[in-house]
Amino acid sequence: MKDIVLGIDIGGTNTVFGLVDKSGNIISQNKISTRGNEPPNTLINRIREKVDSLLNETPNLELLGVGVGAPNANHFTGIIQNPPNLSWGDVNIVSIISEKFLSNVKLTNDANAAALGEKHYGVAKDMNDFVLITLGTGLGSGIFSGGKILYGENSMAGELGHLSIDQNGRLCSCGLKGCLEMYVSAKGIKETVIDFKKQYPNDSFLSGLNSDELDGKMIDNAIDNGSEMAKRLYEFTAEKLAFALAQVASILNPEAFIFYGGYSQAGDRLLDPTRLMLDSFLMDNLKGKIKILESGLSMDQTGVLGAASLIWNS
Amino acid sequence: MKDIVLGIDIGGTNTVFGLVDKSGNIISQNKISTRGNEPPNTLINRIREKVDSLLNETPNLELLGVGVGAPNANHFTGIIQNPPNLSWGDVNIVSIISEKFLSNVKLTNDANAAALGEKHYGVAKDMNDFVLITLGTGLGSGIFSGGKILYGENSMAGELGHLSIDQNGRLCSCGLKGCLEMYVSAKGIKETVIDFKKQYPNDSFLSGLNSDELDGKMIDNAIDNGSEMAKRLYEFTAEKLAFALAQVASILNPEAFIFYGGYSQAGDRLLDPTRLMLDSFLMDNLKGKIKILESGLSMDQTGVLGAASLIWNS
Repeated sequence: MKDIVLGIDIGGTNTVFGLVDKSGNIISQNKISTRGNEPPNTLINRIREKVDSLLNETPNLELLGVGVGAPNANHFTGIIQNPPNLSWGDVNIVSIISEKFLSNVKLTNDANAAALGEKHYGVAKDMNDFVLITLGTGLGSGIFSGGKILYGENSMAGELGHLSIDQNGRLCSCGLKGCLEMYVSAKGIKETVIDFKKQYPNDSFLSGLNSDELDGKMIDNAIDNGSEMAKRLYEFTAEKLAFALAQVASILNPEAFIFYGGYSQAGDRLLDPTRLMLDSFLMDNLKGKIKILESGLSMDQTGVLGAASLIWNS
Repeated sequence: MKDIVLGIDIGGTNTVFGLVDKSGNIISQNKISTRGNEPPNTLINRIREKVDSLLNETPNLELLGVGVGAPNANHFTGIIQNPPNLSWGDVNIVSIISEKFLSNVKLTNDANAAALGEKHYGVAKDMNDFVLITLGTGLGSGIFSGGKILYGENSMAGELGHLSIDQNGRLCSCGLKGCLEMYVSAKGIKETVIDFKKQYPNDSFLSGLNSDELDGKMIDNAIDNGSEMAKRLYEFTAEKLAFALAQVASILNPEAFIFYGGYSQAGDRLLDPTRLMLDSFLMDNLKGKIKILESGLSMDQTGVLGAASLIWNS
């Protein structure tokens, strides 16, 4: 018999799950629609069916446990709290999964799962102190400190998307002002495009952008084609990001910031100006010491691997 | 024989040291002038003499180790790096003490030592996640996360005094702008008094303050005597502090912020407006959940107890 762990990465749109062995090989992986309007029981039943047939196809596998990453997940209580895009309210996903599978179930939030993935199978293998930042519709983060996920008292640490970089800045849907994700995320860059359109009403690149259908690739392509305004858009974004990273660094003294998710595919177009500006916001004793890296794992795998590592490394 | 640990708290002006038993009883304590213009060897020799006579006076004590807290101390390297008010440059204090005493020597910075003191013998006994903030000439911090001091990659974590609360704020001696200690510390409040004097040239309380001889007690007394301007001075300070604490909370999700050092003696005069304003800067899921406390230990004891706990809890 070979020990195996089920890793589940629950997202607002899709859920990815896979059987992961101790070395981080994904023996089998599936992607299904989450269907956030149906109760979570249904999702877990659909996963159970698929996993059963996988286990039947490949005999000699022994399921050791289930690790789960999900938005708004509380590591300590096992509860997913009112997740965005899912009409679940507060749901104890750990007890639902324990009933359907087996009792060894562990939960963490999606950004922590990605951080765990990088730590055990990605670019952070040899790091004890780093911050994984997810750049998607919003901005999330998972923090490793002293070789462990930093959870805080109530599993609410790492809310970097709501770090305020300006006490009088853009109003966020959370009610606060100047939240980082109002500048650095799909949502934030959309706001910047709206601002830039007002500021430069005659710019051809900006005129061609529909802020409601904005996609990072449009900006990336424009930069690759030499658009100065597209470059300026990322420079504005990079300055906000660099200022925030410097504040986090003054508190955590990490070895690296690692970027993951949709907008991280901008790569050096966004990260190079961030690297340049970061040093100007850092104390002398940290200048030049903090790496800014891209994730070393593919988007569909990181969450599954990280979720599985909750069991493999517990 | 009774096991005992020597705790040393090296400060810019004075050095306090004491023999501490496992329960945190200080069997004997001394305070001597640090004499920062003399080499560190001399200081350690002077401590050695005193400790020898203490050990002679009280037989049956067995020295287990030496714990040291000092400004700019690096836990990993054993080096005190160019400490303020001491003309030492970079000095490996751990090897000097190991030569003069015994090999079991551990070093941490002064704010971490205070945090360790609170954790093992003070108000943070039952907490795993808290931030100790020292309010003196400057502002420092020691962070506990998941029951352990958060050091970061190079023992430089917890530089809360240089968290920027305003990208275009007051210029700090470190070269950055908007550093928290330029608002919340003796140095910072002095700057605020200078600003307030310009803003309110006819105010009698402000006219009576000489910003070069400013002392927290002057402000405390004025508040106790009903001065609205003195109250406003602390409200201004509390707003900056509360904003910074909210940012730290979004990253660390601590149970409490604990205040220690000279200006913390303002007590509720400063901390009540901070408590009031903190919630307005916090995300909904943290509102009302974070305590703001004063240190539970006396100023001379915290550092010694915390330093000793480096050995007792290693």
